[in-house]
Amino acid sequence: MPNIALIQSWCSESPVRNTERTEVMIRKAAGQGGNIIALQELFQTLYFCREINPRHFELAEPVPGPLTDRMSFLAKDLGVVLLVPLFEKAAPGLYYNSMVVIDADGSLLGVYRKMHIPDDPGFHEKYYFTPGDKGYRVFKTEYGLIGTLICWDQWFPEAARITAMMGAELIVYPTAIATLPHEGTDVKKKYMEAWQMIQRSHAIANGCYVAAVNRVGKEGNSHFWGHSFVAGPFGELVAESGDEEEILIVDADFDKIEKERQTWPFFRDRRIDSYRDVMKKWIT
Amino acid sequence: MPNIALIQSWCSESPVRNTERTEVMIRKAAGQGGNIIALQELFQTLYFCREINPRHFELAEPVPGPLTDRMSFLAKDLGVVLLVPLFEKAAPGLYYNSMVVIDADGSLLGVYRKMHIPDDPGFHEKYYFTPGDKGYRVFKTEYGLIGTLICWDQWFPEAARITAMMGAELIVYPTAIATLPHEGTDVKKKYMEAWQMIQRSHAIANGCYVAAVNRVGKEGNSHFWGHSFVAGPFGELVAESGDEEEILIVDADFDKIEKERQTWPFFRDRRIDSYRDVMKKWIT
Repeated sequence: MPNIALIQSWCSESPVRNTERTEVMIRKAAGQGGNIIALQELFQTLYFCREINPRHFELAEPVPGPLTDRMSFLAKDLGVVLLVPLFEKAAPGLYYNSMVVIDADGSLLGVYRKMHIPDDPGFHEKYYFTPGDKGYRVFKTEYGLIGTLICWDQWFPEAARITAMMGAELIVYPTAIATLPHEGTDVKKKYMEAWQMIQRSHAIANGCYVAAVNRVGKEGNSHFWGHSFVAGPFGELVAESGDEEEILIVDADFDKIEKERQTWPFFRDRRIDSYRDVMKKWIT
Repeated sequence: MPNIALIQSWCSESPVRNTERTEVMIRKAAGQGGNIIALQELFQTLYFCREINPRHFELAEPVPGPLTDRMSFLAKDLGVVLLVPLFEKAAPGLYYNSMVVIDADGSLLGVYRKMHIPDDPGFHEKYYFTPGDKGYRVFKTEYGLIGTLICWDQWFPEAARITAMMGAELIVYPTAIATLPHEGTDVKKKYMEAWQMIQRSHAIANGCYVAAVNRVGKEGNSHFWGHSFVAGPFGELVAESGDEEEILIVDADFDKIEKERQTWPFFRDRRIDSYRDVMKKWIT
């Protein structure tokens, strides 16, 4: 019965200060019983993709590197699994929107590189990040099998499906999702509802836990809406944050997964002979 | 701007009477402005899959056959598109859970045969129906491009994805879903929520309209919960029935589809190079 802790916070201009504040929250989450501690997308920095500016490439860092060293030390010190998103520099001129998984003994299990990259007003990610080249990943940690996806990936059922079929008991989506001022309250409500629903649907279709960690706060025109949550293996909402800084701690029972999949045996009935066209962009 | 009409009803022991009552409701729906009129799964009969009994094979009929002839006449008479589920006899000993699509001029456009077949307590469908052999289908009708899926298909995102990529503006799921007495109110609520959510998620992921038509009434131990609904192209709930007999009529605006897909451009960003493993049962 691992405890999942989601750290939802606001960010300042200073990566050093953001990382320090996050470390304090990680220690607090561990003190409150968190075993798997997940951070929001690009937690070290403001969501710099709001604008196109080459100076932001300076924020990228290698894996392993100073951040992963620091987080490995922290994971070992606290005996927790850490899910650490970062702006990854793979080579000069080659950058990914990534997440590393660090086991409770401090070992760096690997890196997931965001596969689906958005590019929309206020979210200019295609300028900064090349789409992931490592495919979908699941990491065997001290506290369970963790599948890693990031933000925009959440809108693609194929990504969740493949991650679940690799054995994920929990799929975690670090996120940076916001509304813009012209979008208004009704639109915000519609977007938040769809955002939660699509992720809960992955829990339903795949009979596994799903967690999303979103940032909060106003950065320029973007209002990040928080509402991090954990869904159980039939999509039920286990717990949900508000729109302020918060540590959300949730008891998860991965033994429920098999039982839920026996009640709703979707994996038994998939028609894999009929899914080839999923590999097309469109069918004409 | 077609009007979608969903006919949610209870059934008696008599297929003749059920068909007559449904015809009355179809005429009423057309009179109220319905252009695309959708019936519930196996609308002619009780949900006989509650039990395993070879005499129920007598309920099956060919396509084309008496039912489709009658419905073609009705569609032409009223100038409406009819979506007509039936227990299809393809050959002696070969039966499908099917739906025919009849255009507003009465022409029989074709048949969809349910691809994913459940088999669970109270739902012994694998005994009666062979899994569909025609794949996913979209029909160009007088009132729009209609994708056809049936009940258990609703839990499989792959089916909705492929149907949407074939151009469906509306995906319709005739359904027979119920709770059993031992399941209680909390379980019923959880199931209904997941049932609606997974289908609304297909509208979100694919930017199209989704409609589900479920029966009502108590048949043996099975309590069919109704709650037919229509979701718009970002998953918003447009209208929803209660748990009594009802004709639900909804204005749909298929022009919204392209706009929604421009706002949320998921089709632009699908990583079709990474989806091959969807064609596996499991990944080890």
